Amino acid sequence: MKILYAGPEERGRYLQEHASPGVTVQARAPQSGPSTIESMVDEYEHIPGVIDVVKWGEANGYDAVLTSCFGDPGIDAMRELVKIPVLAPAETSMHVAAMIGHSFSIVTVLDNVVRPLKKLAKLYGVESKLASIRVLGVSVMMIRTEKDRVYPKAVEACRRCIEEDGADAIVMGCGSMSFYAKEIGEEVGVPVVNPLLVSLRAAEMLVGSGLTHSKRAYPVPPKIGGYPVAFEAAGGAR
Amino acid sequence: MKILYAGPEERGRYLQEHASPGVTVQARAPQSGPSTIESMVDEYEHIPGVIDVVKWGEANGYDAVLTSCFGDPGIDAMRELVKIPVLAPAETSMHVAAMIGHSFSIVTVLDNVVRPLKKLAKLYGVESKLASIRVLGVSVMMIRTEKDRVYPKAVEACRRCIEEDGADAIVMGCGSMSFYAKEIGEEVGVPVVNPLLVSLRAAEMLVGSGLTHSKRAYPVPPKIGGYPVAFEAAGGAR
Amino acid sequence: MKILYAGPEERGRYLQEHASPGVTVQARAPQSGPSTIESMVDEYEHIPGVIDVVKWGEANGYDAVLTSCFGDPGIDAMRELVKIPVLAPAETSMHVAAMIGHSFSIVTVLDNVVRPLKKLAKLYGVESKLASIRVLGVSVMMIRTEKDRVYPKAVEACRRCIEEDGADAIVMGCGSMSFYAKEIGEEVGVPVVNPLLVSLRAAEMLVGSGLTHSKRAYPVPPKIGGYPVAFEAAGGAR
Amino acid sequence: MKILYAGPEERGRYLQEHASPGVTVQARAPQSGPSTIESMVDEYEHIPGVIDVVKWGEANGYDAVLTSCFGDPGIDAMRELVKIPVLAPAETSMHVAAMIGHSFSIVTVLDNVVRPLKKLAKLYGVESKLASIRVLGVSVMMIRTEKDRVYPKAVEACRRCIEEDGADAIVMGCGSMSFYAKEIGEEVGVPVVNPLLVSLRAAEMLVGSGLTHSKRAYPVPPKIGGYPVAFEAAGGAR
Amino acid sequence: MKILYAGPEERGRYLQEHASPGVTVQARAPQSGPSTIESMVDEYEHIPGVIDVVKWGEANGYDAVLTSCFGDPGIDAMRELVKIPVLAPAETSMHVAAMIGHSFSIVTVLDNVVRPLKKLAKLYGVESKLASIRVLGVSVMMIRTEKDRVYPKAVEACRRCIEEDGADAIVMGCGSMSFYAKEIGEEVGVPVVNPLLVSLRAAEMLVGSGLTHSKRAYPVPPKIGGYPVAFEAAGGAR
Amino acid sequence: MKILYAGPEERGRYLQEHASPGVTVQARAPQSGPSTIESMVDEYEHIPGVIDVVKWGEANGYDAVLTSCFGDPGIDAMRELVKIPVLAPAETSMHVAAMIGHSFSIVTVLDNVVRPLKKLAKLYGVESKLASIRVLGVSVMMIRTEKDRVYPKAVEACRRCIEEDGADAIVMGCGSMSFYAKEIGEEVGVPVVNPLLVSLRAAEMLVGSGLTHSKRAYPVPPKIGGYPVAFEAAGGAR
Repeated sequence: MKILYAGPEERGRYLQEHASPGVTVQARAPQSGPSTIESMVDEYEHIPGVIDVVKWGEANGYDAVLTSCFGDPGIDAMRELVKIPVLAPAETSMHVAAMIGHSFSIVTVLDNVVRPLKKLAKLYGVESKLASIRVLGVSVMMIRTEKDRVYPKAVEACRRCIEEDGADAIVMGCGSMSFYAKEIGEEVGVPVVNPLLVSLRAAEMLVGSGLTHSKRAYPVPPKIGGYPVAFEAAGGAR
Repeated sequence: MKILYAGPEERGRYLQEHASPGVTVQARAPQSGPSTIESMVDEYEHIPGVIDVVKWGEANGYDAVLTSCFGDPGIDAMRELVKIPVLAPAETSMHVAAMIGHSFSIVTVLDNVVRPLKKLAKLYGVESKLASIRVLGVSVMMIRTEKDRVYPKAVEACRRCIEEDGADAIVMGCGSMSFYAKEIGEEVGVPVVNPLLVSLRAAEMLVGSGLTHSKRAYPVPPKIGGYPVAFEAAGGAR
Repeated sequence: MKILYAGPEERGRYLQEHASPGVTVQARAPQSGPSTIESMVDEYEHIPGVIDVVKWGEANGYDAVLTSCFGDPGIDAMRELVKIPVLAPAETSMHVAAMIGHSFSIVTVLDNVVRPLKKLAKLYGVESKLASIRVLGVSVMMIRTEKDRVYPKAVEACRRCIEEDGADAIVMGCGSMSFYAKEIGEEVGVPVVNPLLVSLRAAEMLVGSGLTHSKRAYPVPPKIGGYPVAFEAAGGAR
Repeated sequence: MKILYAGPEERGRYLQEHASPGVTVQARAPQSGPSTIESMVDEYEHIPGVIDVVKWGEANGYDAVLTSCFGDPGIDAMRELVKIPVLAPAETSMHVAAMIGHSFSIVTVLDNVVRPLKKLAKLYGVESKLASIRVLGVSVMMIRTEKDRVYPKAVEACRRCIEEDGADAIVMGCGSMSFYAKEIGEEVGVPVVNPLLVSLRAAEMLVGSGLTHSKRAYPVPPKIGGYPVAFEAAGGAR
Repeated sequence: MKILYAGPEERGRYLQEHASPGVTVQARAPQSGPSTIESMVDEYEHIPGVIDVVKWGEANGYDAVLTSCFGDPGIDAMRELVKIPVLAPAETSMHVAAMIGHSFSIVTVLDNVVRPLKKLAKLYGVESKLASIRVLGVSVMMIRTEKDRVYPKAVEACRRCIEEDGADAIVMGCGSMSFYAKEIGEEVGVPVVNPLLVSLRAAEMLVGSGLTHSKRAYPVPPKIGGYPVAFEAAGGAR
Repeated sequence: MKILYAGPEERGRYLQEHASPGVTVQARAPQSGPSTIESMVDEYEHIPGVIDVVKWGEANGYDAVLTSCFGDPGIDAMRELVKIPVLAPAETSMHVAAMIGHSFSIVTVLDNVVRPLKKLAKLYGVESKLASIRVLGVSVMMIRTEKDRVYPKAVEACRRCIEEDGADAIVMGCGSMSFYAKEIGEEVGVPVVNPLLVSLRAAEMLVGSGLTHSKRAYPVPPKIGGYPVAFEAAGGAR
């Protein structure tokens, strides 16, 4: 099984180290887009580069592609364009968190991303399981470069999700926080979902089960796949 | 009041004709993007050109901007970037339809856009009022060029929305179908929302009421507006 | 365009001053009902007088009628009786607030009206966007006569809606608080919806778009419009 | 236990015959209002007369009052005015139907009342259990006077609720259909709720359990009970 | 009317004292299962003994059976096996609480049972009316043996449900707390539902109205009642 | 990684053949319970035997246990008793189906199991993604022994889920239908989830990601783990 990660090399190496036996993980960073993703403006600028990586992955025989940004930008378009599974970290993490408890919280970087994450929970149909979203008030860059200051805040935020908001599990709501997950989980005593790792393992699950995203859900764009030849009879209700 | 329409000239002229006294409408088509929008791939390609128009509008003293595509692509990013209202046709039409009946249906072009429209209804919070979405099985281009064949199908689809799905009102779910609205409304006997016209009138309503989109909902991206200077105390729950 | 306001003269003058060019606003207060509306008992006593104003408005060539009480009492009956739009302040304000942010709060007078307002949010289908309702603990009369004491409380309540409840926008939940809206909005930095003004502008929007309330949603009462002549075939499911 | 029925004598006698041992039922018809209730206009005209009966009932030592119209008009106002339970047929029937199956349907008279009944299901919080509403297309009067023609249609409608809509139980959605309930239940093989009878029995249940409607939910109107003496501290969130 | 209570003698006597005239209540405790029920493990061990009591009740001419554990374990299986109503305390109490206010809270013993009770509220379709669940942090046994210490805590918990969570009514969320209900209700000023008593009165209501649980909802198991003889035509949608 | 399957040998061998490299799967059938599970009565009888297998699995060093019945009976109790993940087929299949499309349908055996499966979808929080449940009207035994007659019906049912109900993916709603999944998927052109296989792969995903079910969600029963030593301060709201 060959899996492509649409992000930087060092995360690709981390994924390879944590992959199941027999699974090869390769990384390929998008050639365009912003350095970090902290707004909807950033998200849309990020999409074209990732679309190229996804198409390249399918063309080069990969079995699945993992996207890297926790806002899951553009995954619907990517799934329209390829047949292999395209795994997105927020969608995967939320469903896995929903499977291991009655409710979960997300801990993330900035207030900016709270409303977009709530929207994702709604779209993915797991809104009733989302206990809360808490933010650390730090940039994505600080997550990476100032762990000493940021990590204790993350632990405290997780504790409040559990005690005050009733969360059974926590999702690290930013790709860069993936590397905090294991340590925090041991400290706070509930499962903490690492979006990077769980995307890989969920990709293995889908490929290993012979599953991919439904073309009913993500149809080939008509400009590429063609238009229906005849009128439908006035259109069935959806 | 000066309103900018992010679409083609001829629609701008139509809007000017239907504007309130004292309102000037100007059109400015995006300089990039696909000719028609019929998939999520098309939607994302459409965004950058419209962002440019929206920023240009604010810089040139317009009071509001109207986007043209019924999928409402990128409106969250646009609202992050400007302070004037950015009106989107699906969002506006759905709320107006929700105001004039207990439930509404959307009649649109292709099966491809059904799921994205359902998602929008969910995000806009009016999902419980959406009776159904029916499709005509035609391309956006045919709406414009083959009205003879398409129009009767649209009438039939609207009738089925009313009789079978219980719709109190209908939304024309494609910018190009705006021009069918008045005629169909007279034929089927329920209000039919013209997304183009209602976007203009809703823009007038917001500007006239001194309202615009909340910066809490659409905050300035931190790369532009700056990062918070200090940590929040472990993050309030949202 | 001629619009009738079913309330006192001085508010009619305020509306005329804030109307679009070419719009005439006239006021006609109900001839019966309680002086202020602070309970469901008050609401039902208020209805017959407003019904008379609405019917008078249609008979005298008005294009739309605006009701005045924020509890929206009796609007379904009024819409059954006329063909012109009957705009209600809570319904209109909630939909407009839902359009300009992801969530909104209502600030209102007394605890008594909290549950009825929650019910309205549920009926109007915008419940998922209602962040909170906060009350000032004052009578409707005090809003009008003791602004010095009431206004600072209103500002504080709005601030808590924003900071603690996550509201992106605020609705002034009482007709008499309409006159606080502009000032508070400037003070708290989010859009504050003035129900009186937004009802007028929404009426202009509907009339200008050729829309009115659906007769499917608000059918003519059979005692007036007649009964169906034949049995339905066992009744379709709704 | 003494129970007052706010409707005609002959129904009062029916209720007395079906009451538990030791329960006295008396009828007192409202002195004003329309002869039958088939629209929201009718509903509001019906309220003042019933309010008088409810107040009379409390003043004359009754333990509970039953209202008669299946649209449950004005019950919130009535509960504001008295301390004894005021039982409404739709509310009671829907909760009882929800207790005996996973879903229920309502069979009623005219299309007019479908939307109002859907609203009630939403307000009462049992919307997720409502499978469908089916109408017979007959006036309330025909229910009473043309049973030969109406009854077979009612059976057919109930069958379709069960077979096509998945209803586990049926509610007779009109006071006048109460007298069909037993016979239809035997014919279609699922429980059929008689709103008249079940209101009586639910009143006995509440009184016998020492329960009544919460004054938190239905507070005494401030014009009667007095206004709060002091400001609340900026208003708690609800 | 003869009603069987599937629990200990002394509660049976309490029920007999509080039954309507003409109603006989008998108790029959399950012959197996744990002494108290404080986890899902306990719940499943409790079921077989209660099933035996329910079947014995039907075989011996009882008109209804009341189960005793507030977690309502196994009621779906019991209803599959008999035709008489099987009343469960949580289901009954939640629907009755939903009838007498806009929202209710549950006060119960241990954190363990909070999530299972939330699930029940969801399954019974009254989730939107559940304001909160508060726990006392005591074992079921302490409820019975240490009322002096437990009772004041229960009052305080109820007060917080009312003041902080907005509950209009309270449900005693444990069979053993039934005996606190009346006293607490007088102290806190909102209706407090006694699950034991209300189950009895609801059983009287159902039997007196000629109603029982729908066999559509709780069909006879095919191993007992037989399998369908023929294939359905590819299966209707449910 | 060692995984235990709580079901028959031959399915254990199937799972071993489809496991990832390095994963050992062992089967251990419950020593008690009914031969097939087709009602809630069957489900509760099935639980004690599976609990024994689950506890045996943890005691013997397995990393996860898979249960076999698609009704997911007793999983909450099992998770209370062990620390390793206990994977249930319906819960896992529904979340995986929700990940690969916007909506999914379940195709299953008998009408009896439809309502219980709907309840599971509600409890698992994926109800908004469930398009429909269709039944074949056959016993579990026929699935295994009469594939010739049953398989074409299953294909037809899947087609109707896709065409009429709008399903993007299908879940085989019975353990015995797992072996139809691959073939049907190829025939109907949407992903068809094999609950047996996907449970295995999801177990690998959880174990490989260092995750298990939250003890907050499934706490150790107090009779085993001990009671809280002190009162909580009047109980936090949940």
